[in-house]
Parts: sequence; structure tokens; C-alpha cells
Amino acid sequence: MIKSFASDNWSGVSPEIMEAVTVANTGHNAAYGEMNDPYYHRALFEFEKHFGKDIALFFVYNGTAANVLGINHLTSSYHAVITAKSAHINEDECAAPEKFGGNKILEIETGNGKITPAQIKPFLKSTGFQHHAQPKMISISQITEAGTVYSIEEIKAIADFAHDNNIYLHMDGARISNAAVALNAGFREFTRDAGVDVLSFGGTKNGLMFGEAVLFFDKNLAAGFKYLRKQGMQLHSKMRFIEVQFETYLKTGIWKKNARNANAKAKYLAEKLNEINGVKITQPVAGNAVFATLPSGIIPKLQNRYFFYVWNNDTSLVRLMCSWDTTKSDVDDFTELIRYEMSK
Amino acid sequence: MIKSFASDNWSGVSPEIMEAVTVANTGHNAAYGEMNDPYYHRALFEFEKHFGKDIALFFVYNGTAANVLGINHLTSSYHAVITAKSAHINEDECAAPEKFGGNKILEIETGNGKITPAQIKPFLKSTGFQHHAQPKMISISQITEAGTVYSIEEIKAIADFAHDNNIYLHMDGARISNAAVALNAGFREFTRDAGVDVLSFGGTKNGLMFGEAVLFFDKNLAAGFKYLRKQGMQLHSKMRFIEVQFETYLKTGIWKKNARNANAKAKYLAEKLNEINGVKITQPVAGNAVFATLPSGIIPKLQNRYFFYVWNNDTSLVRLMCSWDTTKSDVDDFTELIRYEMSK
Amino acid sequence: MIKSFASDNWSGVSPEIMEAVTVANTGHNAAYGEMNDPYYHRALFEFEKHFGKDIALFFVYNGTAANVLGINHLTSSYHAVITAKSAHINEDECAAPEKFGGNKILEIETGNGKITPAQIKPFLKSTGFQHHAQPKMISISQITEAGTVYSIEEIKAIADFAHDNNIYLHMDGARISNAAVALNAGFREFTRDAGVDVLSFGGTKNGLMFGEAVLFFDKNLAAGFKYLRKQGMQLHSKMRFIEVQFETYLKTGIWKKNARNANAKAKYLAEKLNEINGVKITQPVAGNAVFATLPSGIIPKLQNRYFFYVWNNDTSLVRLMCSWDTTKSDVDDFTELIRYEMSK
Amino acid sequence: MIKSFASDNWSGVSPEIMEAVTVANTGHNAAYGEMNDPYYHRALFEFEKHFGKDIALFFVYNGTAANVLGINHLTSSYHAVITAKSAHINEDECAAPEKFGGNKILEIETGNGKITPAQIKPFLKSTGFQHHAQPKMISISQITEAGTVYSIEEIKAIADFAHDNNIYLHMDGARISNAAVALNAGFREFTRDAGVDVLSFGGTKNGLMFGEAVLFFDKNLAAGFKYLRKQGMQLHSKMRFIEVQFETYLKTGIWKKNARNANAKAKYLAEKLNEINGVKITQPVAGNAVFATLPSGIIPKLQNRYFFYVWNNDTSLVRLMCSWDTTKSDVDDFTELIRYEMSK
Repeated sequence: MIKSFASDNWSGVSPEIMEAVTVANTGHNAAYGEMNDPYYHRALFEFEKHFGKDIALFFVYNGTAANVLGINHLTSSYHAVITAKSAHINEDECAAPEKFGGNKILEIETGNGKITPAQIKPFLKSTGFQHHAQPKMISISQITEAGTVYSIEEIKAIADFAHDNNIYLHMDGARISNAAVALNAGFREFTRDAGVDVLSFGGTKNGLMFGEAVLFFDKNLAAGFKYLRKQGMQLHSKMRFIEVQFETYLKTGIWKKNARNANAKAKYLAEKLNEINGVKITQPVAGNAVFATLPSGIIPKLQNRYFFYVWNNDTSLVRLMCSWDTTKSDVDDFTELIRYEMSK
Repeated sequence: MIKSFASDNWSGVSPEIMEAVTVANTGHNAAYGEMNDPYYHRALFEFEKHFGKDIALFFVYNGTAANVLGINHLTSSYHAVITAKSAHINEDECAAPEKFGGNKILEIETGNGKITPAQIKPFLKSTGFQHHAQPKMISISQITEAGTVYSIEEIKAIADFAHDNNIYLHMDGARISNAAVALNAGFREFTRDAGVDVLSFGGTKNGLMFGEAVLFFDKNLAAGFKYLRKQGMQLHSKMRFIEVQFETYLKTGIWKKNARNANAKAKYLAEKLNEINGVKITQPVAGNAVFATLPSGIIPKLQNRYFFYVWNNDTSLVRLMCSWDTTKSDVDDFTELIRYEMSK
Repeated sequence: MIKSFASDNWSGVSPEIMEAVTVANTGHNAAYGEMNDPYYHRALFEFEKHFGKDIALFFVYNGTAANVLGINHLTSSYHAVITAKSAHINEDECAAPEKFGGNKILEIETGNGKITPAQIKPFLKSTGFQHHAQPKMISISQITEAGTVYSIEEIKAIADFAHDNNIYLHMDGARISNAAVALNAGFREFTRDAGVDVLSFGGTKNGLMFGEAVLFFDKNLAAGFKYLRKQGMQLHSKMRFIEVQFETYLKTGIWKKNARNANAKAKYLAEKLNEINGVKITQPVAGNAVFATLPSGIIPKLQNRYFFYVWNNDTSLVRLMCSWDTTKSDVDDFTELIRYEMSK
Repeated sequence: MIKSFASDNWSGVSPEIMEAVTVANTGHNAAYGEMNDPYYHRALFEFEKHFGKDIALFFVYNGTAANVLGINHLTSSYHAVITAKSAHINEDECAAPEKFGGNKILEIETGNGKITPAQIKPFLKSTGFQHHAQPKMISISQITEAGTVYSIEEIKAIADFAHDNNIYLHMDGARISNAAVALNAGFREFTRDAGVDVLSFGGTKNGLMFGEAVLFFDKNLAAGFKYLRKQGMQLHSKMRFIEVQFETYLKTGIWKKNARNANAKAKYLAEKLNEINGVKITQPVAGNAVFATLPSGIIPKLQNRYFFYVWNNDTSLVRLMCSWDTTKSDVDDFTELIRYEMSK
């Protein structure tokens, strides 16, 4: 059984989810998540417990699609999206937002993956100038790609700034459960109540098999989205198998159990690494990622046993991701290995 | 346990597939189907048994995507795609091909869902005329949306015509297994060997949970396709769960077992319907679909117990789809119900 | 000096227009048609005389752009546009609407280029069905590509039908002046007052050098259009040279003078052709186009002296376009030539 | 007669051009620049004198289109374009490249508008990584948006780097004539011979009325471009009026006469400004632009008489553009005005 610190999507499916998928595999069920599909309503019921009533909920296949379609639905092609340079939608979607929406992405260089109203404000000079794409969307990742977490206040400040300027706020919640655990807050507090307009709610990095949810907190904003989903090649036929995963994920509380484990193991890993001379933690560990510099010579040897990604070759900066299934002994064994390789 | 004749995607997942998915859920595995992912290679190995060596194989989420990306990859935006009016890419993708590729779809009105070189030829008048989208792709569905099957000779004739005119041939194989059973032929005979350039190989309608394969039979044509897949929002992270389905589907032969059952039950259903006065079969039954006209008054009552779709309200034409899990007693019970309702 | 019956864009620029362009070439002027550009306001003033106040007026480069951008601005990508099969946007824009907007075009086969509510209605079955592009725009050409003219009542009927079904009405007015002359009506009567929402107002086929106007009759519908124009690569820098053409076109009445001549010469040409045995007029002549069948053998010889396009090789159907500069002697000479060639 | 230092497109049309347009307005001429259009061949003949044989030449409406279509034609949607942050295609096209091509633009922060291989190189790390848009095009502006000029050697270095890495080089030549004058070189030396693959050849900023040329220096690369032009809404019907402008522009040498005047006046303006205490030139003056800081208080008063654009409000940086029609007395009068306002 391979283990790694490569990514939280190298891990498999949480057993509770796999069981729910298996149980859902009974008889016929209305395809495409239509209104006559009971699984849809059960999943919606669970989401409403967390986010309140009057939400619009849609399932798509993955995070790329949740981000691209959610943003595209609330913008015209001549609108610009403001985000961190490191944001997934900017750097890791192979230009999917540009292709599907035609939008320009305006990037903000950050050290920690988080953006602020002060950094966003200069882009508003373009407003009304017909030669420039018009700012209409701000997108933030929670947890960020740098492993940091926005506080509720920080999100509120961005949302207020956005709405004061007739701009929407999107949140890429690929690791939203890890954020909730890190903030010790309910989902709603740092999304809907903080002013987020459209949310990509991910689960694959925390124990699901496939699927991602798009939530609009003003149902009016969601009008027509189902057509965009289909046109975006994101309408699953046997939809129950996505729906039942999210129902189970929320209902059983494994979203929290899994995220707690991943976050705790990252913290533990950081502690253990801190004890090693010559290893340096470069970002405060808020979620399930640990960014650290290692002696470059030992990296290939470590990767042979526990694969992980080098973030910056020049500085030997590596990203170590913990997952819902990372164990204490994984961490112990891995850090032991580091010590051993460094001692040679 | 609900049963229906609504669609072959109202049924669930074949038990062999569910088991394989469960078994694959062990430990960590390289994400995104990269070269270091063993599941990819095992799936490729099975495909090569059917299609031969030197194929380019990619997995995407669904049939919409397989069709749109496969076609898009081999065309420029000013190219036109020629297909049957009833083709999924023309009528049932909510303009996904137009959105993603910008292509114009040129439709051919057919009675039976099949197109011929003679019907395609007039569109070639546009060749070289800069005001018209340029024909560059022909797309056929096997089995067609009308439930009919192209013979190998018919496909060859289209492919030869296409290639003589510098045009590619795409096949939408959403129900390719049903076609293979209907033709009593191997996949390769009516695809690669018949001249198909790019194939959407589906399984969800025949017992898979999610995922669809795109196959290019000339590897050179596939250069860069992995980027298009990502940009098309179709790159799954936990890819092993798609790959293992296709590996199992082909390796265990359930593609054939399932398709045989669905086709056989459709044939049986047609026979039973034929015995009923006032019911009329409107298309020869080649695969797993039965098109028939029913007395309009009884349709809602039948739908209450066995849901199915009305294809044409004016003529009371209905489509009855059999699935991998349709049983003889489903058919017996359903046709009994028809007789009963008609007798009232 | 070459003459032809090829197209009304083979002719040159009306002398009044050329003079206005020359006169406008004085000193510096605000670029891009911004609010501080007096030429814009003068052109707007003339348009308001014809169409009334509270219109939104934009200039683009050509008819393709006016049609594509006008339609695109009022639709989402998952919307469908219903139009005649023969419509320019369907057949003669090399898939520009599909590329720029992603929309599906739903075509209606017509004999005479005109569509009716009864023909449009069946497409509305798709409304609400997520697999189908959603009808949101009807586009009509006035004069049609078949040379016919919609009556005011016919346009009103389509507009009422459209608005009853939450659909917009677009008019491709590439030959709108010829239509006004044919109807003996003011522009406003068969556009704004008849219920058209967005109009492409062309002039290049009637004596202008370049440029086309897009008019929205509800200014609210035009919000943001200036950004779409720029993004659509249609914002001219030295805009005064488009604006002054339209100002002059409307102010001096040459729109009417030119169109009257073109229409009258087409009528005269039709009369002369009617007198020739073996020549048959196939469409009533309403504007400046004459569709006729000629003996196929003489066509190349005629084309040598007066070029024109063959519309259908099989039936020897040709299109003969009269222009603002077509003279009685052009027609006399051309018809003499036909008689001569037929006598050989 | 208004004068300004706002932009070289606030000026009108060079008299030689206006005359040529007027003279071309005779009789009928084949529309759309087809092969039977003599004006096309005459324009091509002039271009070949400068660029050599075996070029592919196309006319479009403006610089936005020339840039977007030229780049789009040589890339797939998943390709990235590397350019200076200040490049027109990045900042001043309202996301036209993203909309039309779906490409991601990767920007390089520069002080002077010029990029180097060393700055481009880091982006190549993305090559082969499926999550990142793939670098395939480098675009440089000659003259740059900062008023600077690439030397021939600098262009060659970029071209060699590009071709070594399977990347194309595009040049935005909106002010290419000013560059040729600044470099005292022929067009060919710093484009085709330096390794540029596709060139936007502009003239509107140097005395033309409308139109821009796209040149491919390898004809094979241009295959199909005419369809893309049409689909891009850039095919002019009365094409002779673009073609004759470019023919005249090159044949009469006014490209050089006009550019020489604009460049010389900019140099003269810079000299005069340099003599004024409190005014500072911020970029070496290579072409027809002068960037300078002025006392902020007097800017509105100056703009009343000679409009110009403020480039940076915080630093009172302004851009003063000279044009083909800027005179010595314009400069004298303007600088006098500055002295006068500063003395108050």
C-alpha cells in the first residue's frame, strides 16, 4: 500500500463514502439530477443544514469546472477576474477560464496566497475605460494554494469591498473542510455570512471519489446555470453517485473527521520537521500542507519512498500534503527517513 | 427497487465494476492519470487487445466531453462538422460543441439516424469559399439515436468519402458495446479498421459509474490532447477510479454480457409488443432501444410504474430503453400492464 | 469602368459620402468615438430623427460584426438563435456567431427567406430542457437573402410572438434602405415600432465605404456593449470617418436616393428579362435583387462582361444585384447581350 | 482646426492616402479582396518590395484584429502567449485575445516595454506540465508601448530563443514605420530577417484611414487564415479601399515621410521640454512618443488647449504623442504654454 505526501488527491476514497456509493447502487434512478431524483434532495437537505435555506446547489465533475462555471455564470466575456497569482484558476487550469469564458484574469503577486482590498483597488482604475477588461469578480482560495487560511474578517473585508464596487466574490473551496477545521468555524460563517456570492465546494481532496458542488447564495444569480453546466460538459448522467457522496460527506461528519486528521498530521509533521537541523518550515501551517526547505541532495531518495512535489528547485522548497488517511506512523517514518538520509 | 425503460443511464453500476472500484480503493496512487499511474497502463493494455497497438487513449468524464474534445482537437474553429440532425452533438449537448470549438454543425435530416456519403456530398460545395465554415469532420453515432446500427460497409463508405475529401471521421460510441453485439463484430472492425479517426468509447450506458474514453487511431493526431482535456475541465484527479472501470469492463467481458442482455431484452420486448393490437414498432430493433407507438391515453399510467420518455407527443411515439439489468420479468410485467390498461 | 450585377458591394462609394469623408479630414479629433467626439453626436442626431430618442447607437466595421455582437450581447452562450436557413448569420459568416458567442443557430428551411411564428413555435419545445440550447433570439433579414421583404405586419407578428415567449428580435438590416423604399415606410415603422429589439443598420451595400451601426431600442439592453465591441475587435480609432458617413447618409437623404435607384433598376431589369423567352424570374422583385434562371450555356459569356453569381448550378439560377450606381443603360446593354447570346 | 498630443490616431488621414482612396472610387471592383481583385495584387506587389517574395498578406480592419488573429492562427487554445505586461494585447484589448483564442497571456513586468530571453525563459518550466497553458508564442511590440525600440539584435535574440524552443514570434507593428525610421533600417531587416513569424503591419497611426495588414513570412503557416479572418468578423467587402491605402502608403514613401516627421517632432519636443525646469523626460525618445513628468497643477490647463493623456496620476507622468501632421509651431506653441502656465 503506497503512501505519499504528494497531494491529497493521491489518497483514495473514505470508506464511509465508498459504502454509500455501493448502497446507492440499487435499481433505477432518474438521471441527470432532475427534480424527480431523491438523491438530489437528500444532498440539498444536508447542504441546507450548513448553509441555510434558499441556496442554489449544482453538482459538477471537478474543481476546475466548479470554478470556471461559477465565475463564468456571473460575468460577461469582457469582465476581468482579480485573483492571487498563485490561484488555481490562474496557474493550474491550463487556461480553462480564458477558454470557456473569454475573461481576462488579473493577478496579484502575493507571498502567502492571500489578497487584500488594498491590492485589489488599483485594478478598479480600469472601470469604465473601454480598452480594458472590466473588473467584475474577485476569486479567493480557501485554503489558499500556499497553505494559508483567510480569517473571517479578511473575507468580509474583501466581500464588502467587492460589493461596494459592484463586483462579485467567488471562493475556490477545494479544501474548504480543512479551512473550516483550521478556523474552527462553520462553513456558513466564512462563506455565505461573510459575503461570498458563489462557492466551489470541494470534497475530492478530502475523501470523495469525484464531483464538486457549486453553490449560489442568492438563488436569482443561479438562473440558467443548469444550461451552462450542460454546455460546460459537466452534467453527469448517473448523478446519484455524486449526490450520495456529498450527502454522506456532510451527514456523517466525515468532512470534519477527515479534515481534522489531515490538518493535525500536517501540524505534527511540521513539529517533527522543526526538530531537524537543516530543515526549515517556510509558511505557518494552517491546514494540511507543509511547505519546507530540505537539503536538495536527499530529495530524490525521499521521493522514492514517499513521493512529494518540489515547489522550487532553486531553493529546495517542497510541498508536503497530508491527507485524510495520513497516519502518525507515516509522519514518524518519513521524518526518520529524513534524519537517516541527512546523517549519511 | 425502481425499474424503468427510461434510459440506460437510469440503471446503476454493474456489480463487477463496483467491486473493481472498491478494490482499487487502496492506498495512494499517482493522480491525473500520469505515466506513473499503473491503472492507466492496465486500462491501456485492455484497450490495445481490442483496438491494436499505437492508439492514443485518454479518459474524460462523460460522453459530451469525449465528443466535443475529440472533434475540437482535430478541427479549427472555422471548420464545420457534418452529422445527422438527430445526433447527440447536434441536438442534445446544449451547444457544447459550438461553445467549446466555435464550429458550425451542418445537419442532415434522416429518418433513421444514419447518414450517407450522398447526403454529405452537397456540403462540400462550401470548400474554399471563405464565407462558409469549411467541412472538416463527419460525426456518426453507433448505435444511432434512432436505435439503428451502421454496418461495417456503411462506415467504410463514409470513411473513404471523408478521407478522399481531407475530412476526419468521428464516431460517437456512447452505445458502442450494443453495436458490437448487434453487428456480432469486434470493436476494431467497425472503428479503426473501417476508417474511424477518433472514437468516443462510452460505458456509462452499459454499467459503468462515470468516465468515457477518447481514442485516436493515429497517435500523431493526439499530440497536445492532454492539454485540451485539462482546459476542457475533464481531467480527473483520482483517475484510477475511471481507469479501473474500463480495465474491468473490457477484461471481464461484461461489456459484452451487459450489452447482450440489453439488446436481447429489447428484442424480446419488441416481440411482446408486436403481439399487442394497437401497438406499433416503428424502427427495426437493432440494439437496446425500442421505438413504438402506444395508445396515448394509457401512457401516463404506464409511466407511473415504468417510466419512459415520449419521443413525439403528436404521434404517441415512445422510446423504450433496455439496460444491462433489464430482466425478462420486467418485460413481461410491463407488457402485461399495457394489455391491462388497454383493456380497461 | 467595370460594371457588374455581382453584388451591391462591388460598387464604389456614393460621391456625397466620399466628399463628406474628405471634408471630415481636418485636424485632430477624439479617437474611438468617445463622448467628446462631435461626429458621434452629429450621427446620433440623424439617427434619432429616424428612430426617435432613447436609442443606443454604436458603430462597428461591418455587417458580420453588427449581427454577431448585437445577438451575442443579448444572449448567453447556452441560448439558441432561430433564423431562416438562408440567413447570412447562418450560412455566410463562416461560423462567426458560433465562435464568438457559442450559440447554436436553429435554422428554418424557407422558400423565400422569410420565417413565421408558426415555423418558430416548434423550437420552443426545448424551453426548460437542459440538454437543448434555449431559444432566446429570433433573427430576421430585411430585405432577406432571397430578395423578399417582410411586411410591417409580418414583423409585428414575429416580435409579438418573440416577446410573449421571452425572446428577443434581431433584424439584419444590411439592405434596410432598400426595404424602406420597397415598403414605402420610415425605418422606425418596421423596426422599433414593430418590436425589433436590436438592429444591424447597414449602408455599405448602398454607397458607404465601411462601417455598420448597431441600434438598441431599449438603452438598458445596451449596457456594457462598448466593452463587447472592443473585445470583438470592432472599435475603430479614427471613428469620425465612420460617423460622418452615417451622418451624411441620413442627413442628405442619399440612403433613399440610392436605394430607390437600385430597387427601380431591379424592377426594370426584371421587366426586361420577362420579355425574353427562356428566362424566368423565380422570386417577386421587392428590392434590388433579381433571381432568374438563364440558359446555362450563355452564363459564362455574360459573366465575362457583367459578372454575377450563379445561385444554383443545377437549375441555372442566378442572382442579379442592382446597386446605387446601376443605370438604365447597364440594364439595357445587359439584356441586349442576353438576347444576342441566346440567338447564337 | 484642433491639434493635440493625445494620440497618433487623433490626427486625420494623410492627403496622399485620401487622394488614392478617392481615385480608387471608380466603377465596380471584386469584393472581399478575392484573387480577381487587382487592388490586392498591387498592394501585395508593394509589400513584396519591402519584405521579399513568398509572403502571405491579409488585410483586416484594425490592430486589435491583426494581433488577435495572427496569434490565434498559430496557436491552440491551450497555448500561452508571453509578452510584456504593458503590451497592447495584454492591457488594451479588453480581453480580445482571451475571448477569441482562449489563450492565456503570461506577462512580464518591464520598465521600458521590452522583454528579453532571460525574462521569458522561466515560463518554459511549464512545458509538458498538463495543468499549465503551454508557451507557444512570444509577442513583442515595435515600437513598444513605452516608446522604446528593439534593436535588430534584440529581436534576433528573442527569435532564436523562440525557435529553439518551438515557439513562434509575433510582432505588433502598430508603429512599425516609426520603428524603421528610428532604426534607420528597412522593414525586412527587423522583421522577416530577424526571425519574426507573423507581423501586424499598422498604418492608421501614421496617416491611414482604416485597415491593418497581417503578414506571415512562411506561406505554409497562413493556410486557412482567410477563413479565420472571416470568422473573426474582419473581412471587408469593399476591400479595395483598404488595399489602395497600403499600396499608396508604401509606393509613395509617405510611410517614411510621415514617420520621420512624427519622430523628429518628438525629438524636438523632448529638447524643448528638457530646457524647462520642473519638466522631466522619463524615457529615451526613440519614436514619436515623449514620456515626461509635468507639474500636476498645470495639466488640466494644458489639456484644454492641447489634449494629451496622463499615464500616471500619482507621478504626473504624461504621454505626448507626435503625429505625421505635428508641426514645429505646434511644439513651440505647446512648450510656450507650459512655460507660461508654470510662471503664473
